[in-house]
Amino acid sequence: MKSISVGLLGLGTVGSGVVKIIKNHQDKLAHELGCSINIKKVLVKDESKQRDVSIDNSKITTRANELIDDPEIDVIIEVMGGIEQTKNYLMQALHNKKHVVTANKDLIAVYGSELLATARENECDLFYEASVAGGIPIIRSLVDGLVSDRITKMMGIVNGTTNFILTKMSKFGSPYSQVLKQAQDLGFAETDPSSDVEGIDAARKMAILARLGFSMNVDLQDVRVKGISHITEDDIYYSQKLGYEMKLIGVAKRDQESIEVSVEPTLLSQDHPLANVQDEYNAVYVYGEAVGETMFYGPGAGSLPTATAIVSDLVAILKNLHLGVNGKSSVVPQHEKQLKNRGDIFAQYFLRIHVKDQVGAFAHITELFSKRGVSFEKILQLPLEGHDVAEIVIITHPCSLKDFEEILEILKFYPVVDEVKSTYRVEGL
Amino acid sequence: MKSISVGLLGLGTVGSGVVKIIKNHQDKLAHELGCSINIKKVLVKDESKQRDVSIDNSKITTRANELIDDPEIDVIIEVMGGIEQTKNYLMQALHNKKHVVTANKDLIAVYGSELLATARENECDLFYEASVAGGIPIIRSLVDGLVSDRITKMMGIVNGTTNFILTKMSKFGSPYSQVLKQAQDLGFAETDPSSDVEGIDAARKMAILARLGFSMNVDLQDVRVKGISHITEDDIYYSQKLGYEMKLIGVAKRDQESIEVSVEPTLLSQDHPLANVQDEYNAVYVYGEAVGETMFYGPGAGSLPTATAIVSDLVAILKNLHLGVNGKSSVVPQHEKQLKNRGDIFAQYFLRIHVKDQVGAFAHITELFSKRGVSFEKILQLPLEGHDVAEIVIITHPCSLKDFEEILEILKFYPVVDEVKSTYRVEGL
Repeated sequence: MKSISVGLLGLGTVGSGVVKIIKNHQDKLAHELGCSINIKKVLVKDESKQRDVSIDNSKITTRANELIDDPEIDVIIEVMGGIEQTKNYLMQALHNKKHVVTANKDLIAVYGSELLATARENECDLFYEASVAGGIPIIRSLVDGLVSDRITKMMGIVNGTTNFILTKMSKFGSPYSQVLKQAQDLGFAETDPSSDVEGIDAARKMAILARLGFSMNVDLQDVRVKGISHITEDDIYYSQKLGYEMKLIGVAKRDQESIEVSVEPTLLSQDHPLANVQDEYNAVYVYGEAVGETMFYGPGAGSLPTATAIVSDLVAILKNLHLGVNGKSSVVPQHEKQLKNRGDIFAQYFLRIHVKDQVGAFAHITELFSKRGVSFEKILQLPLEGHDVAEIVIITHPCSLKDFEEILEILKFYPVVDEVKSTYRVEGL
Repeated sequence: MKSISVGLLGLGTVGSGVVKIIKNHQDKLAHELGCSINIKKVLVKDESKQRDVSIDNSKITTRANELIDDPEIDVIIEVMGGIEQTKNYLMQALHNKKHVVTANKDLIAVYGSELLATARENECDLFYEASVAGGIPIIRSLVDGLVSDRITKMMGIVNGTTNFILTKMSKFGSPYSQVLKQAQDLGFAETDPSSDVEGIDAARKMAILARLGFSMNVDLQDVRVKGISHITEDDIYYSQKLGYEMKLIGVAKRDQESIEVSVEPTLLSQDHPLANVQDEYNAVYVYGEAVGETMFYGPGAGSLPTATAIVSDLVAILKNLHLGVNGKSSVVPQHEKQLKNRGDIFAQYFLRIHVKDQVGAFAHITELFSKRGVSFEKILQLPLEGHDVAEIVIITHPCSLKDFEEILEILKFYPVVDEVKSTYRVEGL
């Protein structure tokens, strides 16, 4: 039986998973492919490190060129992370006519278009299913499964760390810092958690989804981003009281030909299917004009789930190799990118403010909103014991981001307002 | 620009959806494919019927051979339904080297292997994404997205009619017959609803999923089937009281190399993600050894959602045509079919019985179960007012189907038992 040689850049958590899956599912893969898969070389940082997979010492190297310049290696699997250096390795691999599988959303969000163009020029495949939502085959579903539809909206919980933190905060009423510490101890959050908790990781994934779903060159800087580190127990308490769950939600939306992409903490109606996605799980809701609403749910990270997506990409490449059609599947974006301005972005908002406890204070505030044509769906007013201020929580009816932000700017300097505590986007059904 | 000619067998609800999608999304499709799609001929039963899509009269015909024997037609889309006659048309189309897309689960469940073999021989594609769970790209996810994993269990709500009926019965406590009537009035159930409510439709879909997920030649007769027409308001009342939702659930499970496939009304723990799938929606839960649990959710039927799946299949065929690789993608089953016997099929069970109101009655019953090593997880006993019997509801711990059925046989003739009212499978998390 023919054998295909693979080079593996990286042997961390995900890399070890790839080695295990190729080993454990060899029979099934050989049946699907009519060839066996041989991991020929593995690039590591430290040759002497102990690992939880057994791999022949002679296959381990610290020199990348032993993989990317080896003419016998057909496919490079990149699971080492990083951006600039990694990009150079993959560009070189593509120039050497090697197909590439990567799980690296940072890289794809920044250099995806350039890498894909280089792949096309060299008649190579470049697949990255694992870069968004780990084990969920969402990219394949967008590219193949829903190809005949016009996708108008995607909403996703695409970062497991923040979903874990928000789930625990909601369930136990614990403060952010305590749950973050717990997530770090359990290995669900990194020592420096900023890329996750500030929403950058989710923003990268939303840029990738928007690029595919809307066929436009969406970049990371097109995504409006807010993180979760400022969310308080009070915010979560009031959300739940009003019938919502607090989630870090990525939204990519298209009206006519212009789009908006954002990642921010969002109050989701408790009936919304995404509201029940717990702990480190991910899910992506996709709305298509014809299909209506669909949802894809599964593990967003982890060694074996992510490795499943990578090896499925590898299988796709090997099938293409067998048929001699590599490098033909990627399509250049159909549309010019057109971003909505703040006046065209509509949503409902949650607003929590402290107002001085004096006659007519609330009337002043409603007047400010109603002048702009913004009305309220829900209002909750509570006196704060031992203070001479009242806490007011408002859910607005839909209004433009421009109006809302301008109202906020005025509110902050309003004499009756003690403090604007927090604001969040709200999503119903 | 090149144009591809398509013949459409059938112009009912789904057929009209196909015409609309090809028309409305022509730009996107042309961009993806580099060619336009031309519906050249449409087979109908009655040429004079009024339709809700505009299609040139010259394209309408009542003679199938005008499509399947037309050398200019590249692809046949079958949305006419039926089994024997339809199979003959498609066999002939394949012999004439036409690629086929079908939404017909009845046909695929019965003649899938034969049709696929004929397609392979003729180097033609035969795709059937729309046959299971309408707009959800579940087949593509099993075949491509999770190809590198070993799937061990699939659980699905794959029939919208029965899910609609059970949702309404659960929500409003209404009797089966009344909700069925309502579903018929709304067009969610057919005049003769037996194929849906007796579980046959769901069984066909589970046979297709099991065949793909386990790579075995699973047939319709391998599926154990029970329908929903005997479910009473009492059954639903007690299920909810004990923390469950009543759903018609298809289960396909593999232990080692032997499998079980079934469709039956099942009490799902209210925490189970499938328990929240409402109304006519479908969802398929897939468990893979590496990926863990994933779920695919969406509309299971309807004109446009189903048409989306069909046109996505058409796009896959046209991409293959462009690359010259049609007929290469289907794989012959890897494993010999091996069905579990009743002694190896384990589940928890719900049992509702009427017992004569006499001392020691319940002790007799527990003794019968415990002799077989079957113990209880939950028990509910209530006197029935105005009767000299008590109602007992039991949830067993897991036991074999063989044991449970044999116990039931004895129970029916037990002197203390007035009547065995109902039994259901129970699924936790």
